[in-house]
Amino acid sequence: MGLTIGLVGATGAVGRKMMEILQERKIPVDTLRAFASQRSAGEKLEFNGKEITVELLTEEVMKDTFDYLLFSAGGGVSEKYAPIAAAAGNIVVDNSSQWRMTEDIPLVVPEVNSHVLKGYRGIIANPNCSTIQMIVALAPLHKKYGLNRIVVSTYQAVSGSGHEAIMELEGQIKDAAHPHTVYPKRIAANCIPHIDVFNENGFTKEELKMVYETQKILEDDSIQVNATTVRIPVFYGHSESLYLEFDQEPNVQEVKAILEEAEGVIVMDNPEVNEYPTPLETANTDDTYVGRIRKDLFNTKALSMWVVADNLRKGAATNAVQIIEAMEAMI
Amino acid sequence: MGLTIGLVGATGAVGRKMMEILQERKIPVDTLRAFASQRSAGEKLEFNGKEITVELLTEEVMKDTFDYLLFSAGGGVSEKYAPIAAAAGNIVVDNSSQWRMTEDIPLVVPEVNSHVLKGYRGIIANPNCSTIQMIVALAPLHKKYGLNRIVVSTYQAVSGSGHEAIMELEGQIKDAAHPHTVYPKRIAANCIPHIDVFNENGFTKEELKMVYETQKILEDDSIQVNATTVRIPVFYGHSESLYLEFDQEPNVQEVKAILEEAEGVIVMDNPEVNEYPTPLETANTDDTYVGRIRKDLFNTKALSMWVVADNLRKGAATNAVQIIEAMEAMI
Repeated sequence: MGLTIGLVGATGAVGRKMMEILQERKIPVDTLRAFASQRSAGEKLEFNGKEITVELLTEEVMKDTFDYLLFSAGGGVSEKYAPIAAAAGNIVVDNSSQWRMTEDIPLVVPEVNSHVLKGYRGIIANPNCSTIQMIVALAPLHKKYGLNRIVVSTYQAVSGSGHEAIMELEGQIKDAAHPHTVYPKRIAANCIPHIDVFNENGFTKEELKMVYETQKILEDDSIQVNATTVRIPVFYGHSESLYLEFDQEPNVQEVKAILEEAEGVIVMDNPEVNEYPTPLETANTDDTYVGRIRKDLFNTKALSMWVVADNLRKGAATNAVQIIEAMEAMI
Repeated sequence: MGLTIGLVGATGAVGRKMMEILQERKIPVDTLRAFASQRSAGEKLEFNGKEITVELLTEEVMKDTFDYLLFSAGGGVSEKYAPIAAAAGNIVVDNSSQWRMTEDIPLVVPEVNSHVLKGYRGIIANPNCSTIQMIVALAPLHKKYGLNRIVVSTYQAVSGSGHEAIMELEGQIKDAAHPHTVYPKRIAANCIPHIDVFNENGFTKEELKMVYETQKILEDDSIQVNATTVRIPVFYGHSESLYLEFDQEPNVQEVKAILEEAEGVIVMDNPEVNEYPTPLETANTDDTYVGRIRKDLFNTKALSMWVVADNLRKGAATNAVQIIEAMEAMI
């Protein structure tokens, strides 16, 4: 007897990727129901060789019985419909930022803190794309050396802003006069240090997500995170430049050994033969890639590294599907 | 009576930009002589409406009398020819990295340390592009608050690798099969955390330049710099994400006021109306642009900011021409 899974926001970039990954990872889905707004309801999708008609999202359908509901339709939809689905006894894995910082909602990177899922039913939050890949790489090092400061600068792909952003970059590359509507400025041949809205403290909401989601997932409010999140003209794959300060002095060879053993991490770190991850080389895979691991020149307790992952996969859809796998493994 | 200026490496991307800027800034040039290797000698260039024939670079011509010789032909050429020119009594402004860290050679960002030029004759080094713009923005803050740590991640344009790199990115944008020869990996729709060669400590030479040139220019070896330098698919303009720790607690309003007064700096920092610098908006100007100035959320003595400048102009040619201006102003 397979699972009944509902997909809210099935026609978006992440929704489609979720369907792809449910199939790839051979999740035993018996029934897949896809939901979307009026605009997309009625569209046909294919899943495991069968045609699926996108249903209209309503409060009523959220009260049906699902093993899991995957939400990827923005914060407003999650705010309204996820509690209805959860109140009806369903488990919701929500990809929006709506519930991430709510106290009793688990925020989960399965390799790192799936223990919080034990015995849980209700809304589970999928972290921000930039946070997930950083946490996958840092959690094992935090455990060993005790992280106390993270300074991160990101190099984020346009696919993180959805399908229209991919079209905007493609359009601008072909035509210098192509307008910008998704981004506040032209993104082709440019970089924009502005992702999500600005808070009055001068940080963007994207940057603040990296601060507070990291503290929540690692269950340690003493970790001081400073983030600068930047959009660059790359289609798929987020990269991160990390400077890390630890309580204990890290050793580069030991760090590599720890990361080589870590679940979901691939160490690509032989710079003498140009081996370090780039988004173009690692896109369309589910792992988090780490390279350029090096000690700071002055602070013996500090390290730098470079972390890359596919933002639609590990940064969104794969992580959500892995949450289902983790829940299933606990039954 | 105007100046006699020699330009070594006149046909390269920076050499051509130097000619452009000598004209723009109305440097009183009486005679401009252009030098290049066998490959480019004989080419015709135009300067102030007159045709100039590129001469072959030889040891003999370097012994002629010049008011200034601008070198931009790579480290090997500077290593061989700059000492000959200097021994003959000429002032050399060298854009290569060859002499930057040599003890008695001044390394100059005119807004910051032109005092070291007083009474000097011989080789003067022009700093690395990424270092120059960072120093322009940070020197006034160092003076006020005492910098003790800089963590910098760069977003560097391909023009920093010369004309062939611009052609490589253009070619790859038009044709997915266009090869990479300048860069170790494809740069279109990618980012590459690898600029210049790797040192055995895991940092690249470009990153180490940012460390040691900063200490030399600011005359303070206690400043701890950690750099990650990254090439992105942008044609003109380098951007930098900076995390800064000071001895004294900085105040954001005061920082803005200091930078608004600083020579060569333009503050673009009203994020609520999408005002922050990007390379596409600021390219082809001579200033250094600073935005996204904000206090760290945890460390009261730390600030973040975003700095952008045109790498061929302020990062290379403009700075070199400003060194001539500073020397002339001292006579």
